[in-house]
Amino acid sequence: MTDENNTPPVLGAGETIETTRAFLPRFGADGLIPAIVTDATSGEVLMFAHMNEEALRKTLDTSVAHFWSRSRGKLWMKGEESGNRLRVREIRTDCDQDVIWLTVDIEGEGVACHTGARSCFYRRITIAPGASASASLENVAPPQRSRSG
Amino acid sequence: MTDENNTPPVLGAGETIETTRAFLPRFGADGLIPAIVTDATSGEVLMFAHMNEEALRKTLDTSVAHFWSRSRGKLWMKGEESGNRLRVREIRTDCDQDVIWLTVDIEGEGVACHTGARSCFYRRITIAPGASASASLENVAPPQRSRSG
Repeated sequence: MTDENNTPPVLGAGETIETTRAFLPRFGADGLIPAIVTDATSGEVLMFAHMNEEALRKTLDTSVAHFWSRSRGKLWMKGEESGNRLRVREIRTDCDQDVIWLTVDIEGEGVACHTGARSCFYRRITIAPGASASASLENVAPPQRSRSG
Repeated sequence: MTDENNTPPVLGAGETIETTRAFLPRFGADGLIPAIVTDATSGEVLMFAHMNEEALRKTLDTSVAHFWSRSRGKLWMKGEESGNRLRVREIRTDCDQDVIWLTVDIEGEGVACHTGARSCFYRRITIAPGASASASLENVAPPQRSRSG
């Protein structure tokens, strides 16, 4: 994250947003960039959230995942209360630099979801091909008792 | 995806959106739901896109990933031109059913990104902790020549 965020991206000759080595994150009109979080050990997707510029900067500076809570309208250090912080091992961005992918280790009880499940994605969609009207959900891993936040 | 999408979600007694077995995808105000795509073999995040109701229904019905192209304003079967279709192995949703996670096998040349890279996330962010102003990008896997779409 550089000062270039507030000015037109500075790309070298022949460079595009897809090829540049400059990190020029593209926040949406709402000032947010989507962030995918996966587990460094299992590889599973743990959660999906949004970052504003401050959350991204704090994540880069501390190696602990920070987000922007759209529901609460405030900066949010994941696990601040529960202790289930997300320790960042690697951060990537995508071709057009409008998505962030964090690979993390979960601290504390190893719980990333507010329901107490390790991952927010604890239900798979079951369906017979061609029969989307009959789609339903099946638990992959049952939510646990304790609550994260 | 059921008729309940157009009416208030039908939850059983004591059920919440987090515990129900009913698939009640929550599309945003723009009619879209974010979709994370990971590789069934490597586990890496391949791409991130959006689905409208029709794209989700077609994905469920055909087991081939469909999205809504925000830039082109139309339904988009990934790989329709390039042959790099995304064959869906599993679909999950998250706790509050406003995100979709697809686990896929890439057909054709095994390329998911329009740059020709296998994954859109071919660059990691390199940074010294506490020095976010100096963040830059490093290629994880160099983009290939061929183009997907």
